[in-house]
Amino acid sequence: MSSERPAAIVLLSGGLDSATCLALAVREGYACHALTFDYGQRHKVEIECAARIADHLGAASHRVHVLDASSFAGSALTDGGEVPKDHDDPGNGPIPSTYVPARNLVFLSIATAFAETLDASDVFIGVNAVDYSGYPDCRPEFIEAFARAASLATRRGTQEATALKVRTPLLRLSKAEIVQAGVAAGVDFSLTTSCYDPGVDEHGTLACGRCDACILRRRGFEAASLNDPTRYAPGARA
Amino acid sequence: MSSERPAAIVLLSGGLDSATCLALAVREGYACHALTFDYGQRHKVEIECAARIADHLGAASHRVHVLDASSFAGSALTDGGEVPKDHDDPGNGPIPSTYVPARNLVFLSIATAFAETLDASDVFIGVNAVDYSGYPDCRPEFIEAFARAASLATRRGTQEATALKVRTPLLRLSKAEIVQAGVAAGVDFSLTTSCYDPGVDEHGTLACGRCDACILRRRGFEAASLNDPTRYAPGARA
Repeated sequence: MSSERPAAIVLLSGGLDSATCLALAVREGYACHALTFDYGQRHKVEIECAARIADHLGAASHRVHVLDASSFAGSALTDGGEVPKDHDDPGNGPIPSTYVPARNLVFLSIATAFAETLDASDVFIGVNAVDYSGYPDCRPEFIEAFARAASLATRRGTQEATALKVRTPLLRLSKAEIVQAGVAAGVDFSLTTSCYDPGVDEHGTLACGRCDACILRRRGFEAASLNDPTRYAPGARA
Repeated sequence: MSSERPAAIVLLSGGLDSATCLALAVREGYACHALTFDYGQRHKVEIECAARIADHLGAASHRVHVLDASSFAGSALTDGGEVPKDHDDPGNGPIPSTYVPARNLVFLSIATAFAETLDASDVFIGVNAVDYSGYPDCRPEFIEAFARAASLATRRGTQEATALKVRTPLLRLSKAEIVQAGVAAGVDFSLTTSCYDPGVDEHGTLACGRCDACILRRRGFEAASLNDPTRYAPGARA
């Protein structure tokens, strides 16, 4: 049976959103090939988390694609810059310094190449246009434009029946709804990491609790009235 | 003065088209940052040619971006497969086996990230929709769709004054016209290599003369009535 499942590529960062996205894709019946990027990010613990999540959720395979980081300079996530913290309203302001140039464009392009190689029909990405950090490449208009370019770039072409589909099941969900959807689909969120500036102790990763990603994540669990399994650094909830 | 020139990224493969494209971009007054991909292609000699061409044409910089080749399986250019030869009519048929999945999509995406990092206003790519090899990602519709996605993915946004421009000066030219434009712009075509399956002797590279790229190139010089400086393998013109 399993050889008859349609194949999908699922971008998997190791965070809450992409883990939920993978769980939803698996539940839809796809043989999911998880794809994680090592692009010189400061928070490499994400990559280990992604491997554990792929295994936990029954991905058909997990690949770590190493991206030559030198073309991605200019972000607080890849350079030594300070990660901004303690924003009251993450996402409502100018593009933050944690923005990595054209990251989703590059990730989706490589996912498209990988999809063509595996003859996968769908690429899943856990972008979200509600509780997000204000990055331009999370917008629905970008996803639509990318999908058109990807269709034109590949053998599958632009015919509706065969064109590569770019799937964004989280696009219109609040963070609380994403947490609920993930729990309902069986995601163990203690395996995920969202923090842009994590620490570590003898038991594993500690979220800072203060970067935009931590604030959005914590509020999501609170609004969903679900237990937050995140381990925070001392003083994080000050 | 040179610090005031606008910056552009120019995709440079080491072949005839991209060398001409770089020469045209330099002549337009851009500080050109040439970008070459090492994606596991069989014809690595292209990468050395690209470095010599960048130097010859006065590029502001030349970067070789190493792409994790494992996501680009499935092409005769990266696998061990046979390069097709002796086509009478290259480009008029199904997508050939030398097609690398979504290659221009990936290359342009990384060029876009690089452009954002350098605050470059333009990305030049030497695609051609006339004498080309039938790859889907050389079509004008693809380039237009990509430009829209790239604008939406980046800080520059979609405002006409600031949006990243994807420039394709060779798009509507025949191979003969490309050869003429390159010669007029000072390109030494003996530095370029187009062959998909080159050999080597004690003086350097030898083109096979029989793959689609060689056939298109040779006909271009013939139609332009210009001297072809390509060194062909013995028997190539049989």
